[in-house]
Order: sequence, then structure tokens, then C-alpha cells
Amino acid sequence: MQKIAENRCFGGRQLRYSHSSSALGCDMNFSIYLPPQAERGRVPVLYWLSGLTCTDENFVTKAGAQRYAAEHGLAIVAPDTSPRGEGVPDDPEGAWDFGLGAGFYVNATQEPWAAHYNMRDYVVSELFTLVGANFPVDSARAAISGHSMGGHGAITIALTASGRFRSVSAFAPISSPMRCPWGRKALAAYLGDEIREWENYDSSVLLGRDTEQLPLLVDQGDADDFLDEQLKPHLLQQAADSSGYPLQLRMQTGYDHSYFFIASFIGEHIAFHAANL
Amino acid sequence: MQKIAENRCFGGRQLRYSHSSSALGCDMNFSIYLPPQAERGRVPVLYWLSGLTCTDENFVTKAGAQRYAAEHGLAIVAPDTSPRGEGVPDDPEGAWDFGLGAGFYVNATQEPWAAHYNMRDYVVSELFTLVGANFPVDSARAAISGHSMGGHGAITIALTASGRFRSVSAFAPISSPMRCPWGRKALAAYLGDEIREWENYDSSVLLGRDTEQLPLLVDQGDADDFLDEQLKPHLLQQAADSSGYPLQLRMQTGYDHSYFFIASFIGEHIAFHAANL
Repeated sequence: MQKIAENRCFGGRQLRYSHSSSALGCDMNFSIYLPPQAERGRVPVLYWLSGLTCTDENFVTKAGAQRYAAEHGLAIVAPDTSPRGEGVPDDPEGAWDFGLGAGFYVNATQEPWAAHYNMRDYVVSELFTLVGANFPVDSARAAISGHSMGGHGAITIALTASGRFRSVSAFAPISSPMRCPWGRKALAAYLGDEIREWENYDSSVLLGRDTEQLPLLVDQGDADDFLDEQLKPHLLQQAADSSGYPLQLRMQTGYDHSYFFIASFIGEHIAFHAANL
Repeated sequence: MQKIAENRCFGGRQLRYSHSSSALGCDMNFSIYLPPQAERGRVPVLYWLSGLTCTDENFVTKAGAQRYAAEHGLAIVAPDTSPRGEGVPDDPEGAWDFGLGAGFYVNATQEPWAAHYNMRDYVVSELFTLVGANFPVDSARAAISGHSMGGHGAITIALTASGRFRSVSAFAPISSPMRCPWGRKALAAYLGDEIREWENYDSSVLLGRDTEQLPLLVDQGDADDFLDEQLKPHLLQQAADSSGYPLQLRMQTGYDHSYFFIASFIGEHIAFHAANL
């Protein structure tokens, strides 16, 4: 693991590292913010999963989250959104919604993706362990959040990672990848045609099951261009209603899919997680 | 004037416009944040001048200023850092510290720059008037701030714009362009060899004169890579000491030249300006 950037920020440190990932079979970058409180002992940690086309840097530079992380004494880990580098296959047509920058937080079973596209294992096991071993964070107090594809990743991982995360939140998540174009394209390629496999990566399906009921906060802008075709938060609400899951879904008037939306509410999400950690 | 982007942000609106600039002889983009309070009446306005290589977008996406602007009910206007487009000359070698993205907030007198590189007039007169006429801002309550080259721009403009701005602040300003490589290169090309011309664009010279004493706050990171060669805040302090100017210069331990530094203190700068408006 090699440090590639360090910047003081709100009294803490914004750090960026490169490391060799065995889960993904390539070198990966990730960012971690350590609040001032981490100078004095272990702090709780929030994992942030970004959306399509992002790297580990978008959230770090655009969300303004460090201020709130410093207030609440929370570390924030931001991984990349897919494997990268030579030998890692990409969408044959270079589309932005699949392949590089679009790992969808699954473990791929199909060729040529299976050797590299294991973002679920990377986040849940490899990175989680790496961070816990190398930074002053308390991995027993971990939460997870994300945006769009990363909101899907955060919810599906939180609900299936057997107690690894204490709370989960999402901004404009892909609520049911099985039922939207982005998701169907990715799941078919990464997982093949077996619908039962897809269900394990579908937030609305998982929310309808009898799972552990982690605190779950979702914000969705009603001016989001992707709302009706790709995101479909009503499917999340329907699933929660059917299983009695205490989902807190908030429609935010006038907000779109951008980081201006995330910046506006990330403070409330961090406060939500801090209260649960 | 044409709107090219609009995003809801912290209950207000982050807007981006394109317009034809007569001062610069080209089309220009600028960004403006209108806080929620602007829905109900005119609000005070902060002009933000960015540094080398920036456009109007860097501050808007990276500084996290909208939160504080919404709290204090302040609009923020962010212009580009130079003229742009076909016919606008650039550094012959494409250097990043001169020409495009590096207008230095002067009115050029030398060819081939004089026809376009009039960023001072653009900010002080054309944009100021355009914003006052088209948005719910109170131009009688205006402040100005900026970063690096933009910190130099903010201080020199505030001290010579005869009461147009009520307060001024800067992050890591080029304190004396006459006495650093970035500044000497730019001033020689834009203004020619006459040192007296340069002095009108040198914050340390101006601060040493008997000018109106606007409230002036400067933050400078002590881990800034450009500190000793380009920024030289001690020259600003010396000038203030000699003229009795009540400069508030704060050295910030461990901070560098990046937007992580700006984000960490922009809230205090906005509170400073709000108190003076």
C-alpha cells in the first residue's frame, strides 16, 4: 500500500492510496479521510460507494463531506467504482454505463469479467480488512452509503454482509437493477441469465426479504433525470411496505442527480450514521 | 445572456450563464449561486476570483461554499479566469501560468493581449453591472475574495475600485506579483516594462499606500508548495505594518494550496464578509 496524496482538510487528513488488489487482480486507488479525532484513537468509519463513471476522487472533491466527518469524528473511505488498468476488460463499445467505472458492486461469474470484476468482495472483504489493519478506524463501528450505482451497492452490501455495517444510506440509488436498463445490461453481462443470481444484487428484492433491519435512509431528488427510467424509488418503498422494513425515503423537491444534490444532504446522512455508530 | 446550467443546492440555485463580453471581446461563462433568501428579495453578493488554470466551475464544485452562502443569505458570483475562445491569444508555448486561464485580473496594454485580456474591467464593471441588473442581488452590499492569482485579483480590485466592495479576503494570494516569477512573467507581457504600471496591480504596494482601509482577511497554509517562491505573504504583512492597514493574516498549520484548504476555511470567510455586508 502506497500513499499517493495527502492534504490537510478541516483539521484532519484527506489521504489517497494505491495498492495491489487480489480480489480484482489489479492495482487500485482508494481515498480515506481521517478526522482530527483519529489523532487520539480509533474512530468509526463510513464507506462511500460512488456512481457510474466516478473514481475514488469525485466524492472527495465535490461532496463537501469532510466538514461533517470532522464534526462527528468519522473516517470516510471511498473506493474506485471498478477494477482498472491493463488487462481489465471494458465494454466493447466503450459505453460509460458498463465495464470500467461501472462495476456495479457485484462478483462477476461470467467471462471475460469474472477474473477482475469482483467489486463486492473487494469492498466487503479486502478493502474493509485493509483499512481496519492500517488506519485508526474501529471496524466494529462501520456504516455504508453511496450514490446511484453506489446507492445500489451500499444497500445490497449492507443487507447481505452479515452485520458488517450498522447503518446504510443512499442518494438516488438504482433501487431495482433487475427492472431498469442500466442494471439489466450490467447484471446480464456480469452474472449471466440466471434471475436468481440477479435477485441477490437487487435492493428492492432484498428489502422485501426477512433480513436484519438496519437503519436505512434514502434521499431522492424529484428533478432527477434518471428517476423514472433507472432509479424507481417506489420499488424500494413497495418492498419496504411489504416486509415492514423501516425505510426512511425522502423525496427532495427540485434536486437532480448531481453532486450539488449530494452536497446538500450529505451532512444529514453523516449525522444519521454517526447517531447509529 | 443565456442560462447553460441550473442545479438546486442547499435550498437555493447554482446557476451558470454564457454571455457576450464587450470588455473581453469574446463569449464568457460565469456561475452564480443564489441562496434561498434570494427568492424573497435582494441579497448581498460575494465575488470569487479563481486561480491559475481554473474556470468558473472549480470553486463552484469544490469549495463547498453554497452551504455557508445559504446560511448567511449571500449570493456568490464566480467568473472565469481569462478570456476564452477563437481569436483569443494564448501563451506561445501553452504554459499554464500565462494566457488562457491566467488573465491576472489586469487590463492589458500590450499587443497581442490588449484586445481581450481586460479581466479587471470585466469583473469590476461589465460583470458587476450585468449581475446587478439581472439577479436579485444588492450591488451596494458587495464583497470580493479569491485564491492565489484570484487572491491577488481580489485585493488589488478591492483597494482600487473606489468603494465598490465593502470587504475583501484571500486564500494564499500572490502577495506581490512584481516580486515573483508568475507575476513578473504576466505583468511584463500584459503591461510592458513600465514598473509604475505594475505597481497598480501589486497588492503589497497598494496596501502600503494611504488607501481606504477595507476589512481584509487572508489565510495562508504553511505547507503550500508555492509559499516562498510565488506567494510571499510576509510582503503583505510588511506593507500593512508600514501603512497601519489592519490586515488579518492567518498562517494555517499543515495546509497546502489545494481546494481542501479553501474548503476548510471558506465558511469563516463567508461569515467575515456577511458580518461586513
